[in-house]
Amino acid sequence: MICALEGEEGRRREPSTLTEERIWNMQQQIAVITLGVADLARSKRFYKGGFGWLPAFDNDEIAFYQMNGFVLGTWVAAKLEEDMQRRGLATPGAFSLAHNVASADEVIRLIDRLAGAGGRVLRPGDAPPHGGFRGYVADPDDHAWEIAWNPAWPIDEQGHVTFA
Amino acid sequence: MICALEGEEGRRREPSTLTEERIWNMQQQIAVITLGVADLARSKRFYKGGFGWLPAFDNDEIAFYQMNGFVLGTWVAAKLEEDMQRRGLATPGAFSLAHNVASADEVIRLIDRLAGAGGRVLRPGDAPPHGGFRGYVADPDDHAWEIAWNPAWPIDEQGHVTFA
Repeated sequence: MICALEGEEGRRREPSTLTEERIWNMQQQIAVITLGVADLARSKRFYKGGFGWLPAFDNDEIAFYQMNGFVLGTWVAAKLEEDMQRRGLATPGAFSLAHNVASADEVIRLIDRLAGAGGRVLRPGDAPPHGGFRGYVADPDDHAWEIAWNPAWPIDEQGHVTFA
Repeated sequence: MICALEGEEGRRREPSTLTEERIWNMQQQIAVITLGVADLARSKRFYKGGFGWLPAFDNDEIAFYQMNGFVLGTWVAAKLEEDMQRRGLATPGAFSLAHNVASADEVIRLIDRLAGAGGRVLRPGDAPPHGGFRGYVADPDDHAWEIAWNPAWPIDEQGHVTFA
């Protein structure tokens, strides 16, 4: 989603307030996002052919991609189920991942590219009420990717994204 | 999951090779992870009471947490469905998120804390074959969190995690 928050009702906290209110000295940190996949080779073709991403490591059951401050894992779903001791993982899951790009034109081009690499367009690119531009593509395992241009949120050279 | 990769079969790529092979000059970047929630107030109680995390912004339908180089969003699921133009989002989804801590003892204490804040333990903490320590907890919307101690992967002060 893209939100331009000026003038909206809603609470925004400054970092100093954040620190004072923090009740547990934990990093707001996610180390890994792991997606369950049915066919790892097919998944790797999508991520390479669509996004141009290459794993830092892969074997027959898992691929790890180094991302902006964390790791994306794609793991054969049966192994993920075994690790989390939970069966019957369902799709489409109630989540989305967003990859942000630098312009509306890049959104359109990347959605086309992802569709050509085995993705399925859920929502073609268009402009949300709050500005910017976005669309959604499901990967071959039905995981939803939002492709967005959000001019309000800065991204540094390492890909680190800041809420703004 | 936790993997110590020494001696395993599998390909590991050096950054220089990565650059040469890259066919599309894209950041390996995820800007937002958005989780669909049924009850945002309940979700915020879990993330504050369990992890100690506070949103940078929240209103009646969404909360944004500034994470390590990206943003975590928790959004009323019906709004997420509308935005992605896809109905029937299912749980449990075929994915997990991992939060890494500094010791096995912290894994146990955090799992207890998450359970006390409305989470449901899927797998109590134990040691996987490759080393480290981990367990899984479902949040109130059934999204799976792995709580892990992975001594092999460095985390800097800003929470940025490196595949190693």
